[in-house]
Amino acid sequence: MAIRNPFRNNKVKETDDLGFGTRITGDRDRLIAKDGSYNVLRVGNWSWSPYQDLVEMPWSKFFLVVIAYFVASNLFFAVLLNLVGIDCLSGVKHGTWLENFQQAWFFSVQTFTTVGYGSISPSCISTNFVAAAIALFGLMSAALATGLLFVRFSKPTSQLVFSKNAIITPYQGGLSFQFRVANKRNSRLINLDVKLTMSWVDTNPDGTRQRRFSRLKLERDKVVMLPLNWNIVHPIDEESPFWERTPADLQEMNVEVIVLIEAFDESFSQIIFANGSYCDEEILYGVKWKPMYHADPSGSGKTVLELGLIDEVVSIG
Amino acid sequence: MAIRNPFRNNKVKETDDLGFGTRITGDRDRLIAKDGSYNVLRVGNWSWSPYQDLVEMPWSKFFLVVIAYFVASNLFFAVLLNLVGIDCLSGVKHGTWLENFQQAWFFSVQTFTTVGYGSISPSCISTNFVAAAIALFGLMSAALATGLLFVRFSKPTSQLVFSKNAIITPYQGGLSFQFRVANKRNSRLINLDVKLTMSWVDTNPDGTRQRRFSRLKLERDKVVMLPLNWNIVHPIDEESPFWERTPADLQEMNVEVIVLIEAFDESFSQIIFANGSYCDEEILYGVKWKPMYHADPSGSGKTVLELGLIDEVVSIG
Amino acid sequence: MAIRNPFRNNKVKETDDLGFGTRITGDRDRLIAKDGSYNVLRVGNWSWSPYQDLVEMPWSKFFLVVIAYFVASNLFFAVLLNLVGIDCLSGVKHGTWLENFQQAWFFSVQTFTTVGYGSISPSCISTNFVAAAIALFGLMSAALATGLLFVRFSKPTSQLVFSKNAIITPYQGGLSFQFRVANKRNSRLINLDVKLTMSWVDTNPDGTRQRRFSRLKLERDKVVMLPLNWNIVHPIDEESPFWERTPADLQEMNVEVIVLIEAFDESFSQIIFANGSYCDEEILYGVKWKPMYHADPSGSGKTVLELGLIDEVVSIG
Amino acid sequence: MAIRNPFRNNKVKETDDLGFGTRITGDRDRLIAKDGSYNVLRVGNWSWSPYQDLVEMPWSKFFLVVIAYFVASNLFFAVLLNLVGIDCLSGVKHGTWLENFQQAWFFSVQTFTTVGYGSISPSCISTNFVAAAIALFGLMSAALATGLLFVRFSKPTSQLVFSKNAIITPYQGGLSFQFRVANKRNSRLINLDVKLTMSWVDTNPDGTRQRRFSRLKLERDKVVMLPLNWNIVHPIDEESPFWERTPADLQEMNVEVIVLIEAFDESFSQIIFANGSYCDEEILYGVKWKPMYHADPSGSGKTVLELGLIDEVVSIG
Repeated sequence: MAIRNPFRNNKVKETDDLGFGTRITGDRDRLIAKDGSYNVLRVGNWSWSPYQDLVEMPWSKFFLVVIAYFVASNLFFAVLLNLVGIDCLSGVKHGTWLENFQQAWFFSVQTFTTVGYGSISPSCISTNFVAAAIALFGLMSAALATGLLFVRFSKPTSQLVFSKNAIITPYQGGLSFQFRVANKRNSRLINLDVKLTMSWVDTNPDGTRQRRFSRLKLERDKVVMLPLNWNIVHPIDEESPFWERTPADLQEMNVEVIVLIEAFDESFSQIIFANGSYCDEEILYGVKWKPMYHADPSGSGKTVLELGLIDEVVSIG
Repeated sequence: MAIRNPFRNNKVKETDDLGFGTRITGDRDRLIAKDGSYNVLRVGNWSWSPYQDLVEMPWSKFFLVVIAYFVASNLFFAVLLNLVGIDCLSGVKHGTWLENFQQAWFFSVQTFTTVGYGSISPSCISTNFVAAAIALFGLMSAALATGLLFVRFSKPTSQLVFSKNAIITPYQGGLSFQFRVANKRNSRLINLDVKLTMSWVDTNPDGTRQRRFSRLKLERDKVVMLPLNWNIVHPIDEESPFWERTPADLQEMNVEVIVLIEAFDESFSQIIFANGSYCDEEILYGVKWKPMYHADPSGSGKTVLELGLIDEVVSIG
Repeated sequence: MAIRNPFRNNKVKETDDLGFGTRITGDRDRLIAKDGSYNVLRVGNWSWSPYQDLVEMPWSKFFLVVIAYFVASNLFFAVLLNLVGIDCLSGVKHGTWLENFQQAWFFSVQTFTTVGYGSISPSCISTNFVAAAIALFGLMSAALATGLLFVRFSKPTSQLVFSKNAIITPYQGGLSFQFRVANKRNSRLINLDVKLTMSWVDTNPDGTRQRRFSRLKLERDKVVMLPLNWNIVHPIDEESPFWERTPADLQEMNVEVIVLIEAFDESFSQIIFANGSYCDEEILYGVKWKPMYHADPSGSGKTVLELGLIDEVVSIG
Repeated sequence: MAIRNPFRNNKVKETDDLGFGTRITGDRDRLIAKDGSYNVLRVGNWSWSPYQDLVEMPWSKFFLVVIAYFVASNLFFAVLLNLVGIDCLSGVKHGTWLENFQQAWFFSVQTFTTVGYGSISPSCISTNFVAAAIALFGLMSAALATGLLFVRFSKPTSQLVFSKNAIITPYQGGLSFQFRVANKRNSRLINLDVKLTMSWVDTNPDGTRQRRFSRLKLERDKVVMLPLNWNIVHPIDEESPFWERTPADLQEMNVEVIVLIEAFDESFSQIIFANGSYCDEEILYGVKWKPMYHADPSGSGKTVLELGLIDEVVSIG
């Protein structure tokens, strides 16, 4: 195989294994999925964080969980009230066990939410104590549910959009690897910092295969603001692992370029991170970017940024 | 044109494009508006963040949104209650559809806010379920509204005040570009850090025009506290893009000096950022700053900082 | 005067003016008060931050404000209810205007807090609308009051205790300026960083007096944890502004050593800052520190840190 | 004693005392307990932080405190209502003092939680004022309790798991000290940074014993992500305090390797810290790590990380 050990004799420095390790688990597996998540499954005594789960699940599932919790808690208290004595709730109209149960559930809901109409109210010591417990439990539950709701609502959503493809394109007399990002929202991102690492599979002299990593140098790895788009440029020089590689080489090496962007989101007052990755089949050749911004034709004096153009390239030569 | 390519042969280093790019979209457009916002319009599939919008809109609009949401939600539930059966609300005095509707709306409000007087209360299974839904929906809505209210209230407001003009004034035997900032509030700002970038328009040999950027070196770019005012000084030496420029040159170059200040606000326990910019017509010549602080004449032993004097300059020579 | 211009001919580097400026406003004024606050008065169009005020006022004042706000808001609504028509509140026992007013106030309170007993309830459209407004206003007000209460409660309180005096004491064959700090709480402070700046008053050749500043070098300016006490040591070498100064010199120079400590409080998950300052009359000579920690005599294997000993020194020689 | 003063003549640099000081309080005491807490007892006027205590106590104790506070507050108000006049609560059925007291307690609970059924309601001015106070007090108390509940729930729990033992094992032709960590949760840890400090006890020429510290150099002290496990490697070269030490030496020196890991938890949007320590008896020899990850045999294309294997070593040679 021609590219066994491709960089062992040149100037490519292997660095920073990104925490992915170098043992090969499967040649054609991505390390970072296209949505930015890690391609890793955690087994054994891993620990579950209900908070994280509740914050990261989709909205529809979150509301289902809240409603299920609300219904189930009050079912439990309705059972308890029936056991303690439905007669001890004044305002309840005696009926079948189902009707009694329904009314106990409604009373529980009215207490849990602290609405407390009073059309049903506790009339014995026993039910008064149960009602006190329901109210306290309801206050605590509401704190969790509404706190989670607000954390979800105020969490900075993924706002950095990456170009679907990267390109290899002329740059200052040589070649460069480029992709671009933009902010989908009108928020202010400040102090952006990008790190690029190339990962590829290499065959050792003994025939075993190993993943290797090399940090890619950038023309600029920090910008202080991101009002428009940011074209991230890795110049392909002698120290680059792209140096003198053909598209076929890159495919055989199972190349993946892993991106980590860090920034401060001023609107949300939080540090945000964005992950991305480009595999060899997502690299285009012989093209350059189509500009994404221009003066506002209506003469407002503003610059117009067209987010829909982020993936657009034009053929060169 | 005389200043085509003004710095190509001297020591000015072009740096850091600030994320604004170098393509000219319109010669006389500011990059940063006087209020610190970017002069950019985002089109295409940009994404709207209701949270950011609700946090950043004016107070009057925020309260209008809250009230509209409150009225509309309860209108919806009032319709639902009328559909389900107004007869199933005990305490309702039957009347015209409008009177029924009004009473349903009041009942909805009493449930939504969890007040629950009980003068109107649900008496059937159907209305009891609707009431449970209203109470749950109300709790969640209140969480959003009150959470947003508190985030707005506890957000550090713009507290750094910039002098309206910058000046070019003698400094250590040469000239310097200066402006000053002060903290309008009695809060403690810590670890302040300022970055200054000059942007100007340049004509390429092929006649196309391009925006250029250069970071300005400062006499001091960090202070640990800001008890008084801070006079930010860029000494104009050979490496400065101001070197040997006349006011007419600066105007023709369409100069804009862009300021980014970062600090930690101890009272709010948050990192804050402040943006500003000075265009060529906001630079004064032949003046120096009037001091802003003096000993307290009442003899309290304190230093008095007069914020009203921040824009004041005195003529020199 | 002997010490006019004390460091002009030696190796002391003037640095970092700390944001206090160099104009003298009064010779014997401290820059930093003993409690860590700035000795500065802000006048002119400074801006008031109700949030900061409410978070930083004493607890007693905070509760007074909350109670006053609560009473006053409901007074306002009681007036409104009386204007709209007390007859439209069912359950009110008609009486003198004072009795009517009291009952309106109680109804307002019951609505504002969303208790809503129902013993008084709105019976007309007008009072129903007022009640809806009170409930909405009450929810928003409660959000502010309880949010502020929680921010106050969860704010890291001043936990770093400084020794009352600094000492000048032998160190590695020379002298050193030392003080010590400890954590009063059982919380974990991480990545502590200290900055020391000496400030003194100097007379210029033209007779004007000026404040000067010099950063003091430290034997160690960072520690990763603070389980015990930290003895902060500035070795007095040729570059130190203390070099060859007598106590009388320091007094004449009106010396103040300003301390800024930054740390991460893991329990509160916040960055904290602590300010302190030592004036010339707070410096002791001919003493060394008494150790603050020892093994637990009960044999628990723990180290015992005695916080009461932080100010204790023992005479040397 | 052979190893008195072991490193005085070689290249080991003593550094950073970690804030533990160098005075020996007891030879065989750990500085950092196995759970990461400091082995220090704070006496004298240390200050208690109720917030920290309430956030860090176990869940069972927290709920006991909340329930005790709830019961006790309402007991106090029940006493007050009885003193003011139980007759002024309409709906109370007169009975023994115990029955009266119980009903006053229930009324207090209904007001405190803002349920307010209305089956009992205040009918005089005095009880109306008490009820207003209870409601206000209840709102404030609920804010504290629910705020604390949410802070506890949303606090990043200890998720970094350390291998139980460290190993001394061959590495690049020499030896190395190694341990490994992994993330127990599916959260994203970013920008991890590890600091290792070795502490040992040394005998001075005058016979006094002193704790010494030396920072250990690492093959890599930062990774940007932690999708799999991280094997932390200290190569034992001439500058290492492990250089040419036998297991018996390490035991006599009472060695403790102290670990501090800092990372950003993206799910919780907070900086987290993890502490660990390895004493001489926790170091294994003649072993190497068993790999913790492999390709998913089900062919999902994912890498499987087996957390249960973190302590597993295999014998070498």
